[in-house]
Amino acid sequence: MATRRDFLKTAAAAAISTSVVGKAYAFSNEHPQLFNITHLGEKPKMKLTFFPYELNLRHVFTVATYSRSTTPDVQVEITYDGVTGYGEASMPPYLAKELGTVESVCDFLTRAGKELEKFDDPFMLEDILTHLDAMDEGNAAGKAAVDIALHDLVGKLMNQPWYKIWGLDPAKAPNTTFTIGIDTADVVRAKTKECADQFNILKVKLGRENDKEMIETIRSVTDLPIAVDANQGWTDKQYAIDMIHWLHEHGIVMVEQPMPKTQLDDIAWVTERSPLPIFADESIQRLKDIASLKGAFSGINIKLMKCTGMREGWKMVTTARSLGMKVMVGCMTETSCACSAAAQFSPAVDFADLDGNLLIANDRFEGMTVVKGKITLPNRPGIGLIKL
Amino acid sequence: MATRRDFLKTAAAAAISTSVVGKAYAFSNEHPQLFNITHLGEKPKMKLTFFPYELNLRHVFTVATYSRSTTPDVQVEITYDGVTGYGEASMPPYLAKELGTVESVCDFLTRAGKELEKFDDPFMLEDILTHLDAMDEGNAAGKAAVDIALHDLVGKLMNQPWYKIWGLDPAKAPNTTFTIGIDTADVVRAKTKECADQFNILKVKLGRENDKEMIETIRSVTDLPIAVDANQGWTDKQYAIDMIHWLHEHGIVMVEQPMPKTQLDDIAWVTERSPLPIFADESIQRLKDIASLKGAFSGINIKLMKCTGMREGWKMVTTARSLGMKVMVGCMTETSCACSAAAQFSPAVDFADLDGNLLIANDRFEGMTVVKGKITLPNRPGIGLIKL
Repeated sequence: MATRRDFLKTAAAAAISTSVVGKAYAFSNEHPQLFNITHLGEKPKMKLTFFPYELNLRHVFTVATYSRSTTPDVQVEITYDGVTGYGEASMPPYLAKELGTVESVCDFLTRAGKELEKFDDPFMLEDILTHLDAMDEGNAAGKAAVDIALHDLVGKLMNQPWYKIWGLDPAKAPNTTFTIGIDTADVVRAKTKECADQFNILKVKLGRENDKEMIETIRSVTDLPIAVDANQGWTDKQYAIDMIHWLHEHGIVMVEQPMPKTQLDDIAWVTERSPLPIFADESIQRLKDIASLKGAFSGINIKLMKCTGMREGWKMVTTARSLGMKVMVGCMTETSCACSAAAQFSPAVDFADLDGNLLIANDRFEGMTVVKGKITLPNRPGIGLIKL
Repeated sequence: MATRRDFLKTAAAAAISTSVVGKAYAFSNEHPQLFNITHLGEKPKMKLTFFPYELNLRHVFTVATYSRSTTPDVQVEITYDGVTGYGEASMPPYLAKELGTVESVCDFLTRAGKELEKFDDPFMLEDILTHLDAMDEGNAAGKAAVDIALHDLVGKLMNQPWYKIWGLDPAKAPNTTFTIGIDTADVVRAKTKECADQFNILKVKLGRENDKEMIETIRSVTDLPIAVDANQGWTDKQYAIDMIHWLHEHGIVMVEQPMPKTQLDDIAWVTERSPLPIFADESIQRLKDIASLKGAFSGINIKLMKCTGMREGWKMVTTARSLGMKVMVGCMTETSCACSAAAQFSPAVDFADLDGNLLIANDRFEGMTVVKGKITLPNRPGIGLIKL
């Protein structure tokens, strides 16, 4: 019996050794990553796991219709051949129709995990992401979570950060805007003073009665450039262009979504006359929307949660540039996972609004950081995360 | 003296050892390729070399205005940190204005080599290629040669083929067309019989008096699908659409450039009525040309020598798709170097016309191959070449 067991052990060791030498190890000096085979000679499989993770906001977030102190979020991991890629779905409730809810995204991710097992190779991003996209109409945040995790994974398998894979210079990553919330004049002044030391460009949400008062309060404290998001707030085109001229005189450098998305002709009229670039936000969700916005807007705001992730986001950068349009990148409140994913193409944009990870108290990662107001990309593979 | 020399040797060894341990080796388990430093702790430089290489055509090439048995070509190598990327400029004389000549391209490459030395990192393709593009108005083939060599180099540094870096499935690479040259009916029949065994789709250049005769001669031998390149040959829009209907009835599957590029409105009129997809060839050179062709053509033909290389070519694929346009990839007579570069994004196109390397007698490389008519991508890093 002892002899037979020894024989089996030896035979098993020989089998492993053959497979190692014959299939993977023998090639490893030449192209170790080209063969989709583990060191044991097996085809590895992608395994997707996820869990809901409520984001705690540092400050209560208030808009006209409601206020909230948390953001629903789902964290995703895809493991393949011992390497793990991280992804995230952030779902502000007011965008549930496009982005999904925790419930609908978890349901999507359960089904997506099963679909992923049909693919042998995480590198085939075009096929995989097209297949997953066709599964559901909405749940864009769930799609983005899978896309980000796959990019992190594939970047790690290539041992390169995505900004490098995309051929971009990390030194060209821009300053990020930081939003000064609407509040009493005293609070706005105090908040602006604090931010003026840390950021090189501020952001203000306008589109109300007191727009000029808000800008004047900030201007009493700092001369920093300001980006304005009107959130569809101006409904009269003459009022909008008058405001934009006034803003231009007060050091504002760009305006997002001045008028409701339903008023595209009015927006085109405004853009044609505007001294400032006008960016589409509510008017754009995905790649397919860009072409029809040429002429109406100067540029587009790309948000990974809306556009289903990094692959489509990068295609949007390419397409917008080809059409002579400007590009900005934005985010939701989200951890450093999704922010660092979006930051990978930030060297190719005109404006960045990537402050989402600064707004939450329970980040899970270190990734892109803001150093003296500028986005700083980590020199680490994939999307460059360190788990905290 | 001996003591002093020994000291210096020891000090030098210590310096190298420190730099190896401190800068490169110590990180190598984590991210060996992330640090732009050689194993000696130095910053490597890109070095560009080139030489003219006249391509010998297997058969004399005849068009209306001239015939030739060679194609002017320049071979390029860029070496960095012991890794060499291969590139190529092919310059059919009739395209000299856009592509350049051997003389102008060699002059461009001399200057480009000096400019390249200003860049530390071959990964920064966006910056490098934008800089080189701005050097000259023309010389697109010279620009493509540098772009291809850099992509081959960077792909090798990442140890991945570009179709994988771009997230594409090599199994989806299409059949390539192969051109049946215009000749006597006997020769055309013989040639078609020969090709029908090796290819799954043929190509014919029309735009002359005997168009229907040529198609009927081929149809007497084979039922294979045929792609037609009219080379701007039809000048009347009604004649063009009548021809296209006739071609459709005879198993033709697409038409390139039915009318002169100056007649864009007529082309749009034809495309609107055409049962076959109509592709732009002479009407398009680069990325910036695509937007204005939407509506006038169903799709575009991308040729690396015209569009300055793989980076812009891939952007053209993305942009055309975003605009709902079809895509084909073509080539010049060229070695397997430039053909294999173009083949990297062939899994994302509708039609491929990559027979350039089959037309020459003095190829320098093995790369993409045609197996039973289908483009077959090598599982090797960069553009996958083996030097013959």
